[in-house]
Amino acid sequence: MASTQYESYPPELNAVEEQYLLENVKDWSIAHGLAVRPAPSFVEPSQDPTGVLAITAPVTLFPSLFPRRCFEEGLAIQKAYNELYSAIARDEEWLKEIVEELIDIDDFVGKLWQTHLAVKKEGYVQDLSLGLFRSDYMVHTDPSNTSATVGLKQVEFNTIASSFGGLSSQVSNLHKHLLTIDAYPSSTASVIKADALRQSKSASSLAKGLAVAHKAYGISRTSRPLCVLFVVQDPERNVFDQRHLEYALLEDSGVRSFRLPFQQTLAHTKLDSDRTLVYTPPHSPSTSYEVTTIYFRAGYSPDDYPNAEDWDSRLHLEKSRAIKCPSLLTHLAGCKKVQQVLATPHSPHLKRFLPDEEVASRVLATFAPIYPLDQSQAGKEAQKLAQNLDSASRYVLKPQREGGGNNIYRKAIPPFLEKLPETHWPAYILMEMIEPPPLKNAILRNGDLQRGGVIGELGVYGVCLWKDGGDILENFEAGYLLRTKGDQSEEGGVAAGFGAVDSCCLVES
Amino acid sequence: MASTQYESYPPELNAVEEQYLLENVKDWSIAHGLAVRPAPSFVEPSQDPTGVLAITAPVTLFPSLFPRRCFEEGLAIQKAYNELYSAIARDEEWLKEIVEELIDIDDFVGKLWQTHLAVKKEGYVQDLSLGLFRSDYMVHTDPSNTSATVGLKQVEFNTIASSFGGLSSQVSNLHKHLLTIDAYPSSTASVIKADALRQSKSASSLAKGLAVAHKAYGISRTSRPLCVLFVVQDPERNVFDQRHLEYALLEDSGVRSFRLPFQQTLAHTKLDSDRTLVYTPPHSPSTSYEVTTIYFRAGYSPDDYPNAEDWDSRLHLEKSRAIKCPSLLTHLAGCKKVQQVLATPHSPHLKRFLPDEEVASRVLATFAPIYPLDQSQAGKEAQKLAQNLDSASRYVLKPQREGGGNNIYRKAIPPFLEKLPETHWPAYILMEMIEPPPLKNAILRNGDLQRGGVIGELGVYGVCLWKDGGDILENFEAGYLLRTKGDQSEEGGVAAGFGAVDSCCLVES
Repeated sequence: MASTQYESYPPELNAVEEQYLLENVKDWSIAHGLAVRPAPSFVEPSQDPTGVLAITAPVTLFPSLFPRRCFEEGLAIQKAYNELYSAIARDEEWLKEIVEELIDIDDFVGKLWQTHLAVKKEGYVQDLSLGLFRSDYMVHTDPSNTSATVGLKQVEFNTIASSFGGLSSQVSNLHKHLLTIDAYPSSTASVIKADALRQSKSASSLAKGLAVAHKAYGISRTSRPLCVLFVVQDPERNVFDQRHLEYALLEDSGVRSFRLPFQQTLAHTKLDSDRTLVYTPPHSPSTSYEVTTIYFRAGYSPDDYPNAEDWDSRLHLEKSRAIKCPSLLTHLAGCKKVQQVLATPHSPHLKRFLPDEEVASRVLATFAPIYPLDQSQAGKEAQKLAQNLDSASRYVLKPQREGGGNNIYRKAIPPFLEKLPETHWPAYILMEMIEPPPLKNAILRNGDLQRGGVIGELGVYGVCLWKDGGDILENFEAGYLLRTKGDQSEEGGVAAGFGAVDSCCLVES
Repeated sequence: MASTQYESYPPELNAVEEQYLLENVKDWSIAHGLAVRPAPSFVEPSQDPTGVLAITAPVTLFPSLFPRRCFEEGLAIQKAYNELYSAIARDEEWLKEIVEELIDIDDFVGKLWQTHLAVKKEGYVQDLSLGLFRSDYMVHTDPSNTSATVGLKQVEFNTIASSFGGLSSQVSNLHKHLLTIDAYPSSTASVIKADALRQSKSASSLAKGLAVAHKAYGISRTSRPLCVLFVVQDPERNVFDQRHLEYALLEDSGVRSFRLPFQQTLAHTKLDSDRTLVYTPPHSPSTSYEVTTIYFRAGYSPDDYPNAEDWDSRLHLEKSRAIKCPSLLTHLAGCKKVQQVLATPHSPHLKRFLPDEEVASRVLATFAPIYPLDQSQAGKEAQKLAQNLDSASRYVLKPQREGGGNNIYRKAIPPFLEKLPETHWPAYILMEMIEPPPLKNAILRNGDLQRGGVIGELGVYGVCLWKDGGDILENFEAGYLLRTKGDQSEEGGVAAGFGAVDSCCLVES
């Protein structure tokens, strides 16, 4: 697309136009649950001790421009990505080599692997695994000409707790509603139009993924009613995002689910002798449920494991007969190191998992170059790049963690490495920065309107159910998320306060 | 129903049961727009100057028990009530006699009537009128045996700005959801069950009423796009209630609507030479809309008319070709005096409007005795009842106003009348108190849970479109509202802080 298209979008609004748009955003969002619980900085807990207040989730006023070709490619290759990561999760030997490089330098990865080994020792009793994945991309442009779109480049691949699927459906509905009621000025009519706005079916599709696993589990061995268990953080400000999946699961498929704070796992679940996972709701102890599927919306961060007992909880859940979303190996497959190994230039690994060359080449095209920081040849070269202020400015340094807040950007890399013992360097991967096109938008957050340059990150959801040591039973693309942050912020976690949910307004590139 | 059924319902909850129920109420309500903007006493405007916070609307945790026979009768006779009030609104001569008794003692009624006369002088140019009515009832029991249900008795009939149709649909969905997820203890299983919970289709039905009028208006005379105008108060804490109708109108019928603060009427609307009402949205002044239907959610209270210009606004709207919901005469038909004239024992008036004896007798059965306080024979007897502390304790004194907050109850009546010049007494009607059955419930409001005795008020919505001097074109029952207040409070306006939205759990009486 022409760079002028980006520069003149979105249009300036006069005060009355802005008021109309804002009022409609504020009311529609609450009427449709596009909301979060307010941050303590906005509403002190003592003011609302029982937590009844809610606030419009951080949203963009306009759908951000996104190249149609990139959007369609992202959705089209999601099934291949589902296949890739389910294949990795089924290849324990391959994964073991990756993980063993990390164990000594990344406690969290080490703990996950030990937990896997502990379950393996007793024998896994469930061979089905569910992935609700999200592959995150940015549009990459030619750094010497940011109006020339190169294509989608992957930022990361999330194998656990892929969030915002509930809110994403709502924000695409919001932008469509705003178009329908002419809340966008007529000057945008050639850009924001019905066939350019892309609705995201993420809430219903992810819920369908859970329903598919629930059904595949089969009938109860214990004549108990069946349920899905959402293992969650507590408190959770982004609760409505999760609730939308819960409600869709119940309404579309009639499947019951419960929210269980991760820290309460051992108090309310137990394993039968055959390792059936039994959940006893504390509010109704006379009825126990057999858990078909554990949906982890917690447990993905070391912060979720402050005590040794928390690892007991994870082990307890992993030992069970319930289908895990994700399994431990699938969780580990989300390590940045895996992404780096696949994306290191001339890597031989991709074709191991995606034998179809045409499919593999499309996936490969979305990899940004990623290097290890280890003692390999590629690693040594990368260390040089990372230690030099000039060359480092084209890179980002990432740990194995999921979620935002842990990355080191550009010129901050050399001083960071200087303080880090060299033995710990291999815990990080060095990734070439993606150079997104210059976009603008306005973000509503806590009632404030922030206008200016933004960066958009496309997340494509995927659902995959497979049999370990066997085949894929279900594989589908499951909608998308556009997450938009100010271009002054290098991190993109919306809930963490650095961005907003958004939807795509497709433009020809 | 047996009184024990009332006494043991709802069950006591232990702390864990209550927490589960509350969490689900708090999350489901926000996820589905069962919300209001927080009161200034809860969130100071300076804390949230742009108004992005919302809060669960005051709701009951349990659906309140309601006798099935009464519920079904209330819904069944709504079409007769629609017919009755549309007939009154079409009978200007009859209405004139009523109104003229009030003009000198009730400024507001006088102003409405003068506005009608002013329009009439120029000639009405729109002969279609729309009513979105709500007939409010309580269950009346034998005062000497409150477990013996006598039947429904009407509290009042609302002809303008009948509210809570948007939230009512949601609260019945909420209670159904809570049943589905077993949030109610198993001890209630024989009471709260699927075929006892009554869903309210009020949001979609009232929106359909507006769509019917919009269509009946016909095509634009001016080649402008058509719209419905919601004339509203500003600010409006109960905005989501109204928004749900707006969204249903757009989604179900494709009809555009705008919210216009009543005070801004003259700034943004004008009358063409043929009195077509043209609305020019301030955010998009290049496109004007022809207004098919004016939906008054403001203008029903003297408080909406602080300045003379506000009456100019009302006149301006009334003169227009748009269909009014309601027309001035329909608004006036909602005076308590009309209700009193119909309900005064042995009144000859009902059969004037409802010639079918069987229909009229069913309507008559819902009237509680109401007396004038004027110089008629009935009025003089009523004055005696009202001035005596003992007899007054069975009555409520009501002015002509819509909405809560203006009634005088029981033993407060004699001292109130003592201070009021006798010439003003006829502005009030004296109504026998309805004696509702002893109910209990728990109300969530601003995060506080209030438990105890409550009184339920059933509101049945009705839609009626008619031709003045002609026939009824559309007439249907449009769902219901159950509004529940603590039995220590004599007023029932939920938005005013005295009650909660609720739904019906039917029991055999």
